[in-house]
Amino acid sequence: MSKSIFYHAGCPVCASAEQNIINLIGAESVEVVHFGEDSSRIEEAEKAGVKSVPALVTPNGNILHINFGASMADVKS
Amino acid sequence: MSKSIFYHAGCPVCASAEQNIINLIGAESVEVVHFGEDSSRIEEAEKAGVKSVPALVTPNGNILHINFGASMADVKS
Repeated sequence: MSKSIFYHAGCPVCASAEQNIINLIGAESVEVVHFGEDSSRIEEAEKAGVKSVPALVTPNGNILHINFGASMADVKS
Repeated sequence: MSKSIFYHAGCPVCASAEQNIINLIGAESVEVVHFGEDSSRIEEAEKAGVKSVPALVTPNGNILHINFGASMADVKS
């Protein structure tokens, strides 16, 4: 894959981080996944190693956990 | 300012995050500040709102705290 993926859960911190990430790397370079709208992507995110949201998975599979957001457990509850 | 500033303290998590950030937004778009090499920048970072490192301060002054790194208290001790 050549795009980064930004996973979030719709929290205010997430929305702020999303805007910053888009400003930094460009909307065309990042896919945004909102777990509240598409919970089917949670499993994929966990397999990639996402421990909390918001998080950015880079094209080479590294993960940047951003801010002090919600844990994956919170997202699923 | 037009560059982002990436503050870190030389920890393994920081080095990994630094490489990812540089890959994502380009080395020419980010200034890297290593507190271990230049502790005089800590005050500036705290004034900008940096609570932990690694952190990226965007050109518009927003802060992305990345991963679960060292607290600012740890950096100064």
